[in-house]
Amino acid sequence: MALTRIGLAGLAVMGQNLALNIAEKGFPISVYNRTTSKVDETVQRAKLEGNLPLYGFHDPASFVNSIQKPRVVIMLVKAGAPVDQTIATLAAHLEQGDCIVDGGNEWYENTERREKAMEERGLLYLGMGVSGGEEGARHGPSMMPGGSLEAYQYIEDILLKVSAQVPDSGPCVTYIGKGGSGNFVKMVHNGIEYGDMQLIAEAYDVLKSVGKLTNGELQQVFAEWNKGELLSFLVEITADIFSIKDDQGEGYLVDKVLDKTGMKGTVDKAQLIEDVRKALYASKICSYAQGMNIIKAKSTEKGWGLNLGELARIWKGGCIIRASFLDRIKKAYDRNGELANLLIDPEFAQEIMDRQAAWRRVVCLAINNGVSTPGMSASLAYFDSYRRDRLPANLVQAQRDYFGAHTYERVDMPGSFHTEWYKIANSKI
Amino acid sequence: MALTRIGLAGLAVMGQNLALNIAEKGFPISVYNRTTSKVDETVQRAKLEGNLPLYGFHDPASFVNSIQKPRVVIMLVKAGAPVDQTIATLAAHLEQGDCIVDGGNEWYENTERREKAMEERGLLYLGMGVSGGEEGARHGPSMMPGGSLEAYQYIEDILLKVSAQVPDSGPCVTYIGKGGSGNFVKMVHNGIEYGDMQLIAEAYDVLKSVGKLTNGELQQVFAEWNKGELLSFLVEITADIFSIKDDQGEGYLVDKVLDKTGMKGTVDKAQLIEDVRKALYASKICSYAQGMNIIKAKSTEKGWGLNLGELARIWKGGCIIRASFLDRIKKAYDRNGELANLLIDPEFAQEIMDRQAAWRRVVCLAINNGVSTPGMSASLAYFDSYRRDRLPANLVQAQRDYFGAHTYERVDMPGSFHTEWYKIANSKI
Repeated sequence: MALTRIGLAGLAVMGQNLALNIAEKGFPISVYNRTTSKVDETVQRAKLEGNLPLYGFHDPASFVNSIQKPRVVIMLVKAGAPVDQTIATLAAHLEQGDCIVDGGNEWYENTERREKAMEERGLLYLGMGVSGGEEGARHGPSMMPGGSLEAYQYIEDILLKVSAQVPDSGPCVTYIGKGGSGNFVKMVHNGIEYGDMQLIAEAYDVLKSVGKLTNGELQQVFAEWNKGELLSFLVEITADIFSIKDDQGEGYLVDKVLDKTGMKGTVDKAQLIEDVRKALYASKICSYAQGMNIIKAKSTEKGWGLNLGELARIWKGGCIIRASFLDRIKKAYDRNGELANLLIDPEFAQEIMDRQAAWRRVVCLAINNGVSTPGMSASLAYFDSYRRDRLPANLVQAQRDYFGAHTYERVDMPGSFHTEWYKIANSKI
Repeated sequence: MALTRIGLAGLAVMGQNLALNIAEKGFPISVYNRTTSKVDETVQRAKLEGNLPLYGFHDPASFVNSIQKPRVVIMLVKAGAPVDQTIATLAAHLEQGDCIVDGGNEWYENTERREKAMEERGLLYLGMGVSGGEEGARHGPSMMPGGSLEAYQYIEDILLKVSAQVPDSGPCVTYIGKGGSGNFVKMVHNGIEYGDMQLIAEAYDVLKSVGKLTNGELQQVFAEWNKGELLSFLVEITADIFSIKDDQGEGYLVDKVLDKTGMKGTVDKAQLIEDVRKALYASKICSYAQGMNIIKAKSTEKGWGLNLGELARIWKGGCIIRASFLDRIKKAYDRNGELANLLIDPEFAQEIMDRQAAWRRVVCLAINNGVSTPGMSASLAYFDSYRRDRLPANLVQAQRDYFGAHTYERVDMPGSFHTEWYKIANSKI
């Protein structure tokens, strides 16, 4: 058998799809997976999807030896220890000048550690962020390779063909830079992605909760927005999501996915001071509630069994945050050692209720005057998020199921669900 | 010479002060530091501060051998590698059943790794958060020991005496829990502390910028607040800070430390939709600006030389965030490859200006309706923070200089400054 051009190890869905994509673009590829049934499954898919030049191997030695030199192997395995294990398995058979590419979502410092270790063995290393989910991997992802430039150049012709192709802009791949830069850029990219989803969900929440828009109106609004400056994949799928009726009952599916008055322009000084005091106190309660709950969550995870009331007590002296307020926190935990959140302690709850009108006035006043109050508004958002029984995260869950088949839970029945949002939304047109 | 009760290694100011505090409470203590002049300095201070029972050693072997068994050594060295080095130095001389206590701000997982490694050598280990800065270390800190309960019990009598003593509440120390819990709790505690400072600074900003309060009025307001529910060290020192005149020129020192209208109750639907669209777009610009600048900062730190415009280009296809908007970002970086922030690109700046009134209306509307918009309000806060030439961080810097002598820079002259805020503020009364 002739040698193949490249190898791919790790045949979960992303790995299978990327291997098929590479083969489809005319590059013969060897594939390997520790659980060999995945190898056979991939070979079978390659046949069914058009007799693609993809060759399966059940042991690492023959896998590596089937690739032309200098050999390049792309790994698509879970970040962390599995990557180290796969490297150890492959490196035992690779030779000077061969190259390993990590296509997973690895922490960039791990990539830098591995690149150094590989360099000492004469091997080249790339950390390559791959974005676009399963669909992208199969038909054209955005790729962010960082690390050895020499290794990038070995496979540049492949990457230029398998990545997404955008008219007037070219293939969605470029050599990012040295070290772990490819993974770092992918990480920030994911942060931006989830930021987009969060912002869209908030826009939806305001329109629905304040504007009382129906799902039909929401669908029209987002579809309209997608014609202008907000034109994007996420706004487009959001419009789609609002068009989908629930096939398990009445109404729209998005609703089933689990999840006052402003101040006058002139400001009375005494009133303002009183409002700001109340806003500061209410924000402070939220800040401490979050701190205590971070500790509570970690204590549960690690089995530490920490006593939250005792912590409040020992912070009463010596340290910078010493305040009479800590005594009140201690008493709240004395009343109920299992308190889920300081905000639902009867005394703190009452105090916040008494102050919330002032708190909202202060944050709005700051916003209207261009004064940034990130802490107070984040605290208020925490309070409002905690207080409401339903958040617009139902939309985020629907978006994730739409583009990544991540599945969702429902508010009205148990189990895990997946919907073909795209197909249903577009079949109606 | 009789054996001492305990040892302390690492004699920067925190270490010196904690050692003197322990000696003052009647526990003979051995001290050691790699740079031996620090040992002599500490011994000298022990003499001057009342012939305290503190004994200095210039080499680790005689230091360790001077302590009674089971030996306990508290380390106060910089977190990370210096802790590992100090452990290696000490462990070479310690015996089965002896104990090491890390009193620094260590990442809790490092403490857990070290506790396991020490256990294999028959040594006990504690990770102990110490809060209160230099003053606290000398006269009574809040202490958060976690790890070996047996080790805690060896030194409980010492900790109960050296920690801060609060009437009706007792010594500010308790056994926190297993593993790295002491360090974890200290970390969250520090988060709460900086949250407090941020919230107070925001309250100050609203009162000063919107309410036009003078420093004299601010001093009175914070002093008044400190009599009620907000009674705390930080509010108290904040009042003090506003009373301090600049001795280098006119006016108040805090000012030298470096650093519209709401919607009606009824909402017109079409207007709301238009406002929300603008708010979403403006927020999105801020979200991407932050993402790009995180990448830019890391690229500079690591010397990666990343091309931000290329990144925007390769995200245009394949991935979830694909959008026409990315093309605009690419063009901004094409116009200026060294662009400090997307917000100051002329086109994006104009777009945000055109949308900011709507953006502020939407966030206020959400706040007044109890709808949480953490993303939109955080984006708006980012914009307002970036836009303003001066933030209330001058107050945070003043607070840090007040309680920790961290020094500050001035808006009107170069150099690093420190002021005895407490002394000056209280000498006037």
